[in-house]
Amino acid sequence: MSKRLEELQAYLGETAILNRAGELLYWDISTTMPPLGFEGHQEAMTYFSTRAFQRETSEELKSMLSDLLCKKEYEALDDTWKFIVSYMNRDLERKSRVPADFFEEYCNEQAASEFAWREAKQKNDFSIFAPHLEKMIEMTRQNALYMEPEKDPYDTLLDQFEEGMDQATYDRLFGELKKELLPLVDEVTMRDVAVNPLVYATCDTYAQAKVQKILLEYIGFDFEKGAVGETEHPFTMGFSSQDVRVTNHFKENNALDGMFSAIHEGGHAIFDQNVNALFDGTVAHSCENMGIHESQSRFYENILGRNKNFWLPIYGQIQDLLPAYRDLPLDDFMSEVNHVKRSLIRTEADEVTYCLHIIIRYELEKEIFSGHVAVSDLPELWNQKMKDYLGIVPDSDADGILQDMHWSDGSFGYFPSYLLGSIYDGMYIDAMEEELGSIDELLATGQIQKITSWLNEKIHVYGNTRSPKQVIDAICGKEVSAEPLCRYFKKKYLGQ
Amino acid sequence: MSKRLEELQAYLGETAILNRAGELLYWDISTTMPPLGFEGHQEAMTYFSTRAFQRETSEELKSMLSDLLCKKEYEALDDTWKFIVSYMNRDLERKSRVPADFFEEYCNEQAASEFAWREAKQKNDFSIFAPHLEKMIEMTRQNALYMEPEKDPYDTLLDQFEEGMDQATYDRLFGELKKELLPLVDEVTMRDVAVNPLVYATCDTYAQAKVQKILLEYIGFDFEKGAVGETEHPFTMGFSSQDVRVTNHFKENNALDGMFSAIHEGGHAIFDQNVNALFDGTVAHSCENMGIHESQSRFYENILGRNKNFWLPIYGQIQDLLPAYRDLPLDDFMSEVNHVKRSLIRTEADEVTYCLHIIIRYELEKEIFSGHVAVSDLPELWNQKMKDYLGIVPDSDADGILQDMHWSDGSFGYFPSYLLGSIYDGMYIDAMEEELGSIDELLATGQIQKITSWLNEKIHVYGNTRSPKQVIDAICGKEVSAEPLCRYFKKKYLGQ
Repeated sequence: MSKRLEELQAYLGETAILNRAGELLYWDISTTMPPLGFEGHQEAMTYFSTRAFQRETSEELKSMLSDLLCKKEYEALDDTWKFIVSYMNRDLERKSRVPADFFEEYCNEQAASEFAWREAKQKNDFSIFAPHLEKMIEMTRQNALYMEPEKDPYDTLLDQFEEGMDQATYDRLFGELKKELLPLVDEVTMRDVAVNPLVYATCDTYAQAKVQKILLEYIGFDFEKGAVGETEHPFTMGFSSQDVRVTNHFKENNALDGMFSAIHEGGHAIFDQNVNALFDGTVAHSCENMGIHESQSRFYENILGRNKNFWLPIYGQIQDLLPAYRDLPLDDFMSEVNHVKRSLIRTEADEVTYCLHIIIRYELEKEIFSGHVAVSDLPELWNQKMKDYLGIVPDSDADGILQDMHWSDGSFGYFPSYLLGSIYDGMYIDAMEEELGSIDELLATGQIQKITSWLNEKIHVYGNTRSPKQVIDAICGKEVSAEPLCRYFKKKYLGQ
Repeated sequence: MSKRLEELQAYLGETAILNRAGELLYWDISTTMPPLGFEGHQEAMTYFSTRAFQRETSEELKSMLSDLLCKKEYEALDDTWKFIVSYMNRDLERKSRVPADFFEEYCNEQAASEFAWREAKQKNDFSIFAPHLEKMIEMTRQNALYMEPEKDPYDTLLDQFEEGMDQATYDRLFGELKKELLPLVDEVTMRDVAVNPLVYATCDTYAQAKVQKILLEYIGFDFEKGAVGETEHPFTMGFSSQDVRVTNHFKENNALDGMFSAIHEGGHAIFDQNVNALFDGTVAHSCENMGIHESQSRFYENILGRNKNFWLPIYGQIQDLLPAYRDLPLDDFMSEVNHVKRSLIRTEADEVTYCLHIIIRYELEKEIFSGHVAVSDLPELWNQKMKDYLGIVPDSDADGILQDMHWSDGSFGYFPSYLLGSIYDGMYIDAMEEELGSIDELLATGQIQKITSWLNEKIHVYGNTRSPKQVIDAICGKEVSAEPLCRYFKKKYLGQ
């Protein structure tokens, strides 16, 4: 191994240790730390993240990378290190085009804006957030222009969350979907659905934690390299492929919510646990394409978890743990799991109307970045689109434009990747059934591990080293399309 | 504030951040980390503890301290910083007399010895541990001699765990106690005690965790600055007075064990939560006198927790949570809590015979350090003393001399401080009842918070800044004596 590569590895190793400390502090703040412990933990977290950031953007690192990119050095690297060196260099080049003082101001504004958003949401007062949102739009656009001066800023943002994506592609995919879904939602929501109240009966939260354990093991989460915690909002994080954690929030009167969060986060975690362990501690490890990552959590949550066959092998165990569910027939449970309704909140939506929630956000982001809408007009435009696509209008901005935090820290371009994940899922179904046979059959006969192994092998093991296009090409051999997802919805909800 | 003091504070602040990361890694390894996450966490923990140790023994620190000890600088310091600067300097001076290469070897031997002890205990084979124990004795003696060349090494060790203690004092205290306890144990253990089997009935561990929460809140543990976790062996740790954590291990068939661990660790934690917050991040914070610290955990566990009146206000709540306890009368519960029996394992002993377990260890340590016993003769000597003082002999070394880990890492001199804690407790009872009235009465009427406040005010708030002698003088106004503890035992167990 070349001396320069050894130096880079040692350098990355030490940076990874500082990042590990920062991430562990974040984990602990979210899961365990008592309220008054915040100041000390926060100070330490800033210390480590500042030091890690300095190392990640240092001249020393730049010089190591540029040496390793020289023809002779580069050719001696194996494929993994070729990927790592090129990827880091590209990233560093893009970031170094952003002036340091601008970047610092942007970070400060992000924090202030997120803070204002919380207050605005809590007080249901968009005017508190509006000036910050304006600033966030302006600075995020500027940041995108610094990074890619030649490119449409919103395309840069879309690409940042999912390599290779742009407005032209999303327009095509979402257009296709919208055309099919608007009439489908109309038809399905006209049906009368009687909700069995036992679905929302009181369930002990400790018992729900036991149910989570069963669900996670069932789908293939490995507790030898995984752990769980409780937080206000569920999330997944990992230190390496050997230590990946999911959190959940158990609500006494909504056991369904905890179960589906467990399956969703479990899908993210199974991805991270099965990345090639040789990538640990490098940029090759954790897949940074949000659409691809979300395609895994959503595959488990929706394609598998909202399929009755998924529950056949384990529903009895769940009934044992949740006394209130003992008199709840599986069919009544499934009826609520697949209850399509016109609702206001994205994170609580069923798998069908969820798509429309995302399309609304995407269309608004496009309007914002094309400069066709003023911030002050956004709440009304939001409500108008809710009315047009979902047939309901929020009573308050808190349940409308203020519901999500994403825009508050400038994460424009993130929302579309969620729906892209489901579009990928539609395509995986076709490829998977061709190779493994019917998913219904696999689930009903307790062979879910075959599905997990297939995903491990086709997607997870590569971590961050394959672009979304490479992933889809290798699995499906065709261009990404919303047609399979539409077909899945029509079959499931219209019996077509 | 002097420039030099500002520098010292910044220096200590950064060291505290590195220590916080190391401690948080330890916490996470013990409570949450999945098995395969160990390698990454371990590497990071070593990184931070090495860096913190370098800073704690650096020339830079020495020079700051020596500047601040100059008359003019020193006189400008407030009392807290006077304490910190003198304490750190004394500690550094003592440590710098230990040659670095010896210290490194000692650390390595400690790790090897602890590892060998685990294997020896598991295989019930003292010969695996014997050569390591020999080495630990030799090196611990040498280390003590480096630190205090003029002093009897075992006295140095005793002083290290409890400032001001030596063999002469322990001989007096433990002699007094032994004389009273041997006949008392003979008398009490002759009684027939019928154990109600419901005490050891199966109790859901999640329900036990809820019981723990009730107990901790009841005794005064503050969840605003405290948290809990689960580990194999219970412990208490804190990052500062604002974040103190206890762990527990819940056993399905021994709810008693979890309850008393909660009360014991809760006692340690209440101490740390109530130290003056201005001391956070410095040596003034956490009391390093193990006897004083243990006096708090043991006061809660024994003096309060083994008193029937303690349970009157909360036993009903516990019965609500543990269905098996609903038919267990409080008197039957208390009978087992105060069941004095001749048993082999220190950590499972009742409050009376516990004293004899410690006295045995103290007497053996004295023999070891006076050079009067060979390591190979220790198991037999252990068994002989067990026979003489407790009237039973272990079947195996695993339940005999190998039961505790303390000697494996050279912590000779630590055991006596546990019993010293109980001796202090006897003295606190007298002082407390004089000021607050009967403890029985306070407990029975739900006024336990008055007891906690008294301990906060008299002991906790001072953290590490008062020596044990100062603590006892201020509270009791007399020299430490085992007489009050003996009186407490005779009253409780003989009705005298």
